[in-house]
Amino acid sequence: MATLPAPVVVREVGMRDGLQSIATIVPTAAKLEWLRDAHAAGVREVEVGSCVPPKLVPQLADTDEVLASAKTLPGLVASVLVPNLRGAERGLAGGADLLLLPLSASRAHSLANLRRTPDEVLAELGRIRAARDASGRATLIECGIGTAFGCTLQGEVPSSEVLRLLQGALDAGADRVSLADTVGFADPGAVSRLFEAALRVAGERFCCGHFHDTRGLALANVHAALQLGVRRFDASLAGIGGCPQAPGASGNATTEDLVFMLESMGFATGIDLRALLALRARVVGWIPGEATYGSLWRAGLPATFRSAA
Amino acid sequence: MATLPAPVVVREVGMRDGLQSIATIVPTAAKLEWLRDAHAAGVREVEVGSCVPPKLVPQLADTDEVLASAKTLPGLVASVLVPNLRGAERGLAGGADLLLLPLSASRAHSLANLRRTPDEVLAELGRIRAARDASGRATLIECGIGTAFGCTLQGEVPSSEVLRLLQGALDAGADRVSLADTVGFADPGAVSRLFEAALRVAGERFCCGHFHDTRGLALANVHAALQLGVRRFDASLAGIGGCPQAPGASGNATTEDLVFMLESMGFATGIDLRALLALRARVVGWIPGEATYGSLWRAGLPATFRSAA
Repeated sequence: MATLPAPVVVREVGMRDGLQSIATIVPTAAKLEWLRDAHAAGVREVEVGSCVPPKLVPQLADTDEVLASAKTLPGLVASVLVPNLRGAERGLAGGADLLLLPLSASRAHSLANLRRTPDEVLAELGRIRAARDASGRATLIECGIGTAFGCTLQGEVPSSEVLRLLQGALDAGADRVSLADTVGFADPGAVSRLFEAALRVAGERFCCGHFHDTRGLALANVHAALQLGVRRFDASLAGIGGCPQAPGASGNATTEDLVFMLESMGFATGIDLRALLALRARVVGWIPGEATYGSLWRAGLPATFRSAA
Repeated sequence: MATLPAPVVVREVGMRDGLQSIATIVPTAAKLEWLRDAHAAGVREVEVGSCVPPKLVPQLADTDEVLASAKTLPGLVASVLVPNLRGAERGLAGGADLLLLPLSASRAHSLANLRRTPDEVLAELGRIRAARDASGRATLIECGIGTAFGCTLQGEVPSSEVLRLLQGALDAGADRVSLADTVGFADPGAVSRLFEAALRVAGERFCCGHFHDTRGLALANVHAALQLGVRRFDASLAGIGGCPQAPGASGNATTEDLVFMLESMGFATGIDLRALLALRARVVGWIPGEATYGSLWRAGLPATFRSAA
């Protein structure tokens, strides 16, 4: 008997991490088309926006509306980034399936990004957990430990501090935790070491790897994490995204290239690559002049390509 | 006692695989500057050209002169591609340190590229070996098995055929063998399987992995091969290169991104990345309008970067 291909979840973060970092404001109607077509292509987890004040990130000002639309798509897990309790309350009210709280392991980045120290973010996480529990909702809380491999502002970020915060996030009430190479400093060796340690701390509550392709290593880093059994990765269509603290940095792992790698390796993503490539072309059309990335769109699928499922 | 970092050789193939696939003809003086500055940056293996009729590949018509210049650089291993005995005789006469004979495992690609079946190329390899031995020179012969993961023309290429040809190349007199993903069909899982089998066949005579980044997986594929102990990889500055049989394909693994990955992982390449990035900028300037690739040049080295040595 043939074994079934192992599932791997590719979580689309282009609508949040991607769009927040480019100047173009994509109209809400286009975002709803993106959502609908990603869902039709088989994408089942999408970070739809950020619950931050619209004036801070005008590109994501329509997050509530996008989230409401996401909730109409069967089987779609819609997450929102929340920087604090106020954002979490908004995400809960909107019916998000998952709240992602970013926590920078770099103190300098944490202060620049959220105006809080990492430990103050942990305290806020406790308040978010209490609010979630009080709401009676099934909404999950994920704490994403960012700048886990170093920081443009601070430089080195000790692994011991990353792991302390990972444990702290679990203790403070996160349902699950993830690691992010926010500025593209990671390499596959560093990923192997830190993810292995993180898995020892968090076990099955360790849920996702988030890699930026700033220096071209995102997919090699995914490969290293895959080998440890990690089965969820963030990625962005056309690789859009970046980090305001990393000038000149390119974006996230590219969704279509990542799905191609996973399916070629025999992992089942559930995603139809031809449909995804067609959507990619439309997304690129909505952000004229912005930097986009990836390789598969140019070369196309190999004639020998078969999806894993 | 700290262990010394393991050495990994990055062989620069941009002067051959890169330049042959673009329209621009780079002047000989610029190639000699490329050679000299690559050597100064610590590069110790360079494929300097092809011993093919100049009218077939006018971009490499000055191969003899470039080879002669390479031989003046201390410690530099200069290789040339040779398609047949006639080319090998030219490479031997020019004092090349290594002759690379490409052998397509795809029969269709072999006929298109060399007008010979794979087994006819093996027979030619026997004649090249005899000529090398008769010359009394220490020149090495490497047989690079191409289209090892599939072929744009033929589609599937069975691993059994790749391994048969690998064994055939050793039997016919190759000093060493390598595998090439000529058209960017490989994924890390396929690399692990085929390279492991190739290492069983060839042992220490298996010498190199050659990956194209056509679909963005070159560095992930290198990572998979590294884990099996492969310690030499071909790459091209700015990722230039491609394959005439793969329209729209992008080029080779990008030298500067690969060196960054290796050094970050603690492998010693002997290459000064800052000097390499400066050279990359000049090479890009010599080929205006041509497609170039890579990520590190845009983002720069992380503040935390330290070379392995």
